[in-house]
Formats: sequence, C-alpha cells, structure tokens
Amino acid sequence: MRTPPEFEELKCGPRHIHIHGHRGARGILPENTLEGFRFTFGIGVRIVELDIFATCEGTPVITHNPRLSPYSTRSEDGSWLQAEGPLISELTDLELSRFDVGGLQPGSEYANRYPDQAFMPGLRVPLLGDLCRMISANGYQDTWLNVEIKSHPMHPENTPSLPVYVERILSVIDEAEVGSRVVLQSFDWRILHECARQMPEIPRSYLTYTPKPNPPRPVNVYEDSPWMDGLSLAAHGNSLPDLIASDGGQVWGPFHHDLTAEDLAAARNNGLLVNVWTVNEFADIERMIDLKVDGIITDYPGRVQRRLLDHGMTWTPPRHSAAEPEGVAIA
Amino acid sequence: MRTPPEFEELKCGPRHIHIHGHRGARGILPENTLEGFRFTFGIGVRIVELDIFATCEGTPVITHNPRLSPYSTRSEDGSWLQAEGPLISELTDLELSRFDVGGLQPGSEYANRYPDQAFMPGLRVPLLGDLCRMISANGYQDTWLNVEIKSHPMHPENTPSLPVYVERILSVIDEAEVGSRVVLQSFDWRILHECARQMPEIPRSYLTYTPKPNPPRPVNVYEDSPWMDGLSLAAHGNSLPDLIASDGGQVWGPFHHDLTAEDLAAARNNGLLVNVWTVNEFADIERMIDLKVDGIITDYPGRVQRRLLDHGMTWTPPRHSAAEPEGVAIA
Repeated sequence: MRTPPEFEELKCGPRHIHIHGHRGARGILPENTLEGFRFTFGIGVRIVELDIFATCEGTPVITHNPRLSPYSTRSEDGSWLQAEGPLISELTDLELSRFDVGGLQPGSEYANRYPDQAFMPGLRVPLLGDLCRMISANGYQDTWLNVEIKSHPMHPENTPSLPVYVERILSVIDEAEVGSRVVLQSFDWRILHECARQMPEIPRSYLTYTPKPNPPRPVNVYEDSPWMDGLSLAAHGNSLPDLIASDGGQVWGPFHHDLTAEDLAAARNNGLLVNVWTVNEFADIERMIDLKVDGIITDYPGRVQRRLLDHGMTWTPPRHSAAEPEGVAIA
Repeated sequence: MRTPPEFEELKCGPRHIHIHGHRGARGILPENTLEGFRFTFGIGVRIVELDIFATCEGTPVITHNPRLSPYSTRSEDGSWLQAEGPLISELTDLELSRFDVGGLQPGSEYANRYPDQAFMPGLRVPLLGDLCRMISANGYQDTWLNVEIKSHPMHPENTPSLPVYVERILSVIDEAEVGSRVVLQSFDWRILHECARQMPEIPRSYLTYTPKPNPPRPVNVYEDSPWMDGLSLAAHGNSLPDLIASDGGQVWGPFHHDLTAEDLAAARNNGLLVNVWTVNEFADIERMIDLKVDGIITDYPGRVQRRLLDHGMTWTPPRHSAAEPEGVAIA
C-alpha cells in the first residue's frame, strides 16, 4: 500500500471508534454546507463525510443529488423549487451559487425525517475547494474528509467524463495540500479505479449496498453490476472484503444493516478498514460499537459521542483523547 | 412602562413566535456555554436564555446550579466530580475557571435526558461579561439575552446580598451597552424587585411554577410563598397575570404545562408578554404554537424552527424574516 502514514489514524483502537459526520451533521444542520462541517469539527469530531458533483464548468461542488432537490432548495426569490431542478452538471458556477440550500421544505417527507435540523436561510452549495481551504487552516490540522464522488453508470450526463471529473477533484485536493487527510469513496467503482490511476496514494473506500429481498433498494453490488466496473463477486467466493482487498482498496463502506461479524473479520484479515453508513438509531449505533467497526458515519455525531462514552470509549485516537482537549471551538 | 422601544420586538406577531434557546441549545451542545450560545445565534435564533450565579468575588457567571453538578463537571485532571461541588458563591473566579463543563457524565440520568448533546472537553463556565461582549460585537446587533438570575429565599448563602448581586449583574450589562436587548427573569421575585429599583427600564419576567397535586414540584407560586416577596395571589383573584401586571412586570414566564388559554388572554389584556419554559416535545411545541405565546424557551431550537415553519410561521419579526437572510453563520 502506498497510502500516507496518516491513514493508520483512521483505524479504530481498543478504546476508540471514529465518527464521520454524515454530510456534516444532517440531523442538526443543513446537509453538505460549510456551517454543518464547521459544527461537526467544532464538537471535536475529526472526520466529515460529503458528496461531490461538478458544474458544467467542471468545478467540484458539495451536494448529494444529480439535480437540486425541491425538498431542500429555494430560488433566489425565496420560493421552493416546484420540481427537480436542473442537472448540477448543466449549471454554471454562478447559476448554482444563487440557490439557497439552508433548509428543508416544510411538510415534506424529507423534512420530517430530520425534525431537529435547523433552518438557516442563505446557505449556498459550497465548492470542494472551500472545504479543502477550511481544513488547511490553523486549528483543523487533525481533521479528515471522507469524500464521496457521485457518479451513475447509466447516467453519464450527471457528470463530466470520468477522467476529467476525477482530475478536477484531485487537483482541488492537491492544491490545498490536504491529500494526506482525504479518503475517496464511491458506489461507482469506475470512479475508484480512475482515482487509483491518477492518485493511487489516496485511500479508496468501496461503498456497497447489497441486494435483499425487500424492500427494493438502489443496490450496487450484484453479478454483472455496472457499478462494479467488471469485478465479480463470484470470482471472490462472494466475499466483498476479499474482492475489495484484491482490487487494491483500503476501505470498505457497507450499509450498516448489511455488515455481519464474519464479514468484518474477513475485512480485518484483508487489512481493510470498515466505515459503515448511515447509523442514526440507538440500537444500530450500539450494534456497530459492539461489532467494533473503524468508523461510524452518522447524521447525529453528538449522539454517537454519547453512545461511545457510555461504553467507556471515545472517537479519537489516544493522542487526541477526550481527556486531552484540543480546544476546538465551533467558531 | 419605561422599557426600551426594542422591547416591542419580543412580542409575537401574526406570523411569528420567538424562539429562546434554553441555556443556549441544551439538546445539542453543553448548556450555558459560549459555544452553545453561538450555535443558537448561528442558526438564526435571536434570543438565548441563560442562568446566573456569582463567584465569591461577586463576578456574575453563567451556570444553572448553586453548586457545580457531578453530572456535568470535571476537575482539571479530567475526573468527574464525585459529589456536588463547592458553592459557586464560595469559589474565586480562578478556581471556577478550572472546571470543565463541556459534557455530561456518561450513564448519568441527566446525560440520558439529552442523548444528542455533543461532548466538548475543555469548555469553561463563561462570565456574563463574555456573553455580553459577544452580543455587543458586529453581527449580533439583533440578538437578545433572557437572563435568569438564580436566587433562593431559603438559601442566602447561594448568592451575594441581593442589592450587591443585582448591582454587579446590571453593571456588567451596562458596561457592554446591551441593556436594551436584555430581559431579566427570576423565580425569586425579590430579585425582580431589586432590578426594578436599580434599573427599571430593563423588562422583568416573572417565572412561575404552580403547585399541582402530583408529582411534587419545586413550586414558587402559592400563598405566603417566600419566592413572591410578599405578594398575594388571593389579593388578585388568583390571577397570576393580574398580579404580575399590577406589580409592574412586563413578562410572564410560566411552565408551559401550567398555561391555559384563559390565562394567556388575561396576560394579553394586562399588556404582558408570555414566554413559556421549557418546551421540547412535539405535542407541547404544537400546543404553544396553537395558543400563540410570545416566546418558546426550548432546548431544541432547530426543532421549534421546523414546527413553526410547518405552521407557515417563523421565529423573527418580518424585518428579519426567513425570506431575508441575515447571513449569520455559526462562526
């Protein structure tokens, strides 16, 4: 492995499991905003998870859906989008910057899923560069980005051509000199292969969503899946950890319900880290702590802090332990 | 009334009810900390509620209990207090500044009540002066403090003599020139009377907790109550609003379960504002919105924002409406 030595920090330890703030802290603040990221870092959680698309200018921006969602987006005049917005990939940087993503549409199902999320009019879709510059500043030296690069094998119109797309993302990371504190993750493993070609030293996390009988899921891992870029589970005894490790991956990112103790052990045997998504309910958090994953990706980082403390654990390696405050404030 | 014209802003309007972030935002961040206050202001909530005691030097500090609580306080060495700490009123400023109030003790009942509260080692009990200086700075011009002055008629050892205690608090407020954006509240109406004597132009909020059959409550409003400084409910037809108004109060602060539509109407007829505490559950928030109180004091300001939006309402007067972002960020 040619990953940077800092990568070792992302493993769990006898007394700690890492917390990754999902889209910042979606349960508390508008998702994928600088304010959400700052909050998560501010409470002493060192890793934020985020999603990338690119504008028509190729600029990597932090947003989750290929089109702006009517449930979380308002126009300049303050009115909610009436339907799915234009493709991010068809907007200029300036056009995108005019939309307000500081809150969820009242009464929408999506809003009801996050009943404590604050409403902050005026927030904008950040550039990946904004966040990289934030963490390159003083006070953020120990923070990490878990960057999900969004891409869809059946919807090439959502993104630039993959080599160009990945090149733009990596150059933003490189320019801010934060490459040693980044993990790249994707459900579309073509992206991970492109990352490996262009910047092999940045660790790659293989996101997986496994078919189950019901309800239907937008799964990515099955035989002949276009998401897997030609890889075959069957060729690896149906073991995802074996497949990922033999493909040169460093991290496995399964849906938490899909993870078994056996698979976790297999991942460890293969030298993989395991970061599970997206773990919000108490019982699920407990199960992930009991399994002892490396990282818990959650919309409620404060809630996972509390569960870890109740187990006599923390969320940072000993040199950053809870007993040695870093003095990180929200400001 | 000699209250400043700004006070009118604290009334509810046809489309807004004010949110007061209780102890900052106790559901999300450690209570009564600058970080909690900054968070609440950062999400666009303009009023924070806080509690005052004074050190043995007479310095007003922001903390809720007469003694440091073992459930929320650690010593300099990181260990939890094993029992109730010393009286705040017996500590020097320096001694108090050494305690860490950045989180709740794992496994304690108090911690379990706030399962999402972040854990931030290294936070200190702030001085009232710290917060007053914060809100006197640029970007905080529209914010308010709802300052609860703690005092106990049967425990004079908890506080300096009342005239001195109140004088110190008011001079801190005065020095920062934020007196026009402060409400003073207390369960101990001797304090309110002392405030009226020393600085009558600052509005006073009469906190009430009414006896109910069960469970037992630490009530302050009953005949011959030492909390009421000689005032008699019976002399006012058992109407708290009548009593408070005739005593020169501007605000009534009842426990939300105690408030009826009739009493709210009586308060309005008497020209009183009504701010209810502490409203965290969905059904209770709904009831307070339906009643149309002036202010909702809550540990979960984001949650109350959402409930208000679902009613087509907001939490700031029209000139600060959600459609006209102020650009307040968490930083």
